[in-house]
Amino acid sequence: MPREIHSFANDTVKRIRGLRDKKERKAEGKFLAEGLRILAEARMSGILPMVIAYSPAGGVHPLAAEIIAEAEAGGADVIETSPDILAKMSGKDNPQAILGVYQQSTTELAAIDRGFAPLWLVAQALRDPGNIGTMLRTGDAVGAGGLILVDDCADPFSVEAVRASMGAIFTQQVATARWADFVAWLRAGPGQLVGTSLNTNTDYRDAIYQQPCFLLIGNESQGLPADYEAACDMLVKIPMAGRADSLNAAVAAAVMAYQVKASWRI
Amino acid sequence: MPREIHSFANDTVKRIRGLRDKKERKAEGKFLAEGLRILAEARMSGILPMVIAYSPAGGVHPLAAEIIAEAEAGGADVIETSPDILAKMSGKDNPQAILGVYQQSTTELAAIDRGFAPLWLVAQALRDPGNIGTMLRTGDAVGAGGLILVDDCADPFSVEAVRASMGAIFTQQVATARWADFVAWLRAGPGQLVGTSLNTNTDYRDAIYQQPCFLLIGNESQGLPADYEAACDMLVKIPMAGRADSLNAAVAAAVMAYQVKASWRI
Repeated sequence: MPREIHSFANDTVKRIRGLRDKKERKAEGKFLAEGLRILAEARMSGILPMVIAYSPAGGVHPLAAEIIAEAEAGGADVIETSPDILAKMSGKDNPQAILGVYQQSTTELAAIDRGFAPLWLVAQALRDPGNIGTMLRTGDAVGAGGLILVDDCADPFSVEAVRASMGAIFTQQVATARWADFVAWLRAGPGQLVGTSLNTNTDYRDAIYQQPCFLLIGNESQGLPADYEAACDMLVKIPMAGRADSLNAAVAAAVMAYQVKASWRI
Repeated sequence: MPREIHSFANDTVKRIRGLRDKKERKAEGKFLAEGLRILAEARMSGILPMVIAYSPAGGVHPLAAEIIAEAEAGGADVIETSPDILAKMSGKDNPQAILGVYQQSTTELAAIDRGFAPLWLVAQALRDPGNIGTMLRTGDAVGAGGLILVDDCADPFSVEAVRASMGAIFTQQVATARWADFVAWLRAGPGQLVGTSLNTNTDYRDAIYQQPCFLLIGNESQGLPADYEAACDMLVKIPMAGRADSLNAAVAAAVMAYQVKASWRI
């Protein structure tokens, strides 16, 4: 049976709320996912929450009821509560009617089987959690194996990133690494490292991409450092027709990823 | 000479602050752009602010000084103030050191010269201002003529949209229209209307795109209504390899736009 919580001061409420903070997420190794759509994506990936909280006000969606029952059967802490307390947990005025707490799952670089997928996305110092989440979503759509976060990137387990991923946080492998460690790992096996840059005349549509291809996208305002570009097997340029000299980082990743895929006709 | 403002209760401070609200933006016909980069983009498009506010704390960037001088010469209200008051104006704890108030500029559908560009982006009921701004930015990069906002879209002049546009709000034409009016206008001249949809087997890479091409992107969660799809000349599908059934709307727009452009080899 769900337990009912009606107190804002309840310890579980505070701990869930705490997961909006990166330090607490890291200390707990957990993260928060909000809304039926993302919880349903998690379940389709065979992943159930450790804690699930919902409000019966306004009725419980049949799919939500299934997920709640399965989570309970799996030993989750199931909490029935009010919209007000969900708002407190989620830090939003209009919270979703259901949220789940999940275990963070990251992959060590050494544990990645690069042959698992022909394409991998690599983000370098991306600071916008929405961009990280959108790259995960794009990676899922394009059949990438996962996302490797190099240097100091936004937290892929932040609420914003999880929301933007639309559930891909549960399907894409996520690894984090310092640049030197990433390069050492990459060069220990097959893999073409492709950087998107303005410092080249190679049109991204004319390049020959090899599998596995690692698409490297640099920081939103700085792009890639010069020595990172020098370490790439190939730099390619997406043509810019207007006055702006760049695309949004997640958009550039997607345009590149779909072109790489198209070049292989897969 | 700039006038100095040191009072939070100053009327100009309140009016600038008010531009964060859609109703006030609409009533005033103005909008707020924050940060040197976007103000510099505006200036490169020959557009100067009506009001410019900056803080000399920490030093004034040489480019900012030029823009301030030009704005003043052009008759702008130039305000020297403190970071605290800039924070009040922008509603942010860490405001940019400079902001400008600009005249909203939209184009009537009837005034659009569709032959001006081979490609136009059309957003239908897009609710995320970041997506609207990102589509503007992509439109600029891909050489589109502008963005047509059909039905109830997020405000392209919101702070979030302006920021995501990275200045493209000053270079791309923006029109708003109800669907019926848009279709009537479109059919009164040449133009291929292409919808992105899952309800087709036509791979977006195999389609033949004609100029001018109008790329129609539907609402973030609902996609395009069935009758809107029926009104398109062609529906195309971006293949989805993973479990997710869609891309972020602005990402889908960019993948489509770059493919259309690539198909023409321009």
